[in-house]
Amino acid sequence: MNNSRGKLIVVSGPSGVGKSTIIADLLEKRGNMRFSVSLTTREPRPGEQNGKDYWFVSREEFADMVENGRLLEHASYVDNDYGTSADFVDGEMSLGNDVLLDIEVQGAAQVKAARPEAVLVFVAPPSLEELERRLRSRHTDSEEKIACRLRKVREEYARMDQYDYIVINRDKNSSAAELDAIITAEHCRTKDRIHLIREVE
Amino acid sequence: MNNSRGKLIVVSGPSGVGKSTIIADLLEKRGNMRFSVSLTTREPRPGEQNGKDYWFVSREEFADMVENGRLLEHASYVDNDYGTSADFVDGEMSLGNDVLLDIEVQGAAQVKAARPEAVLVFVAPPSLEELERRLRSRHTDSEEKIACRLRKVREEYARMDQYDYIVINRDKNSSAAELDAIITAEHCRTKDRIHLIREVE
Repeated sequence: MNNSRGKLIVVSGPSGVGKSTIIADLLEKRGNMRFSVSLTTREPRPGEQNGKDYWFVSREEFADMVENGRLLEHASYVDNDYGTSADFVDGEMSLGNDVLLDIEVQGAAQVKAARPEAVLVFVAPPSLEELERRLRSRHTDSEEKIACRLRKVREEYARMDQYDYIVINRDKNSSAAELDAIITAEHCRTKDRIHLIREVE
Repeated sequence: MNNSRGKLIVVSGPSGVGKSTIIADLLEKRGNMRFSVSLTTREPRPGEQNGKDYWFVSREEFADMVENGRLLEHASYVDNDYGTSADFVDGEMSLGNDVLLDIEVQGAAQVKAARPEAVLVFVAPPSLEELERRLRSRHTDSEEKIACRLRKVREEYARMDQYDYIVINRDKNSSAAELDAIITAEHCRTKDRIHLIREVE
């Protein structure tokens, strides 16, 4: 029955906001949704699996993909490269599957430029104080690192206009439900459905 | 908690498509949603209640409201006037309630012109054949009336571009869920939420 092209959903949000839990919920809830695993040139950490956490590729392979336009977006952090495979995204979408990307604000801008039909969703904390509390309760970041993350969120907030939707993560169930509703609604857009009624004329 | 302005949701769709059932489901599901009862100059039919089925007003009252810009849209059918009270709609929205209008394609265009933020949803049948079957099974319309209704749907389809969303009513539960998702998604739009994150800066 599903012969329409899938949707490209880009989700961004600060570290500690609870994005991964929401995404896991959503992938469980929606059958035809695929998560795009990022490519990276960094070394796998203990326990990380190729194709699950990242696709681990060499610097040469990565450079080659950039060169040949096979990445939908890419960026460097701390001397390593990260990117999104255009082949994976386009392939799944043409099968009618929705594809979800979990990427940074800069990457989201690149995806929107390359695929204007992409739907951009930002997951925000209820407040910066609450985000700080969540980061602190993880006991994984130094004070310096937490301060750095909070500075970064303020920078991200300044670029909010590029996002279509904002989900404020007060609790994970209602946030997953909102993200789910956004995707359902995007499938109801007139431009996506008009052929279904026009073909009966 | 809810201090943001409500949404204006306009639902249109042909007679027999099952719109009223979907709307009743939605009103039950969403607490802060108000249905806008139309005003009319026609006489009440047996059993019809003022303020429930319609607000029954005199021709003079109606003309006065048109004159004073107190109708969001209005139209005439078979020598009677029908319209939507701007006071009711604006009042409920400013209280933070969503307002749902069930009006024709022409009225929807008037509302969109007056309130560009209105969200327009068209409820369509799976096919014209199916609509014809549903109309026939009601045993209320003559053959001539059914043919007239089907002609009207084709005219409506030609004006589909003004709608933001199309819900195809295959079964009432999934259609009510789609309409519900559309309203939830519209509340997540960046323009409606950016103040919530900007105020923490």
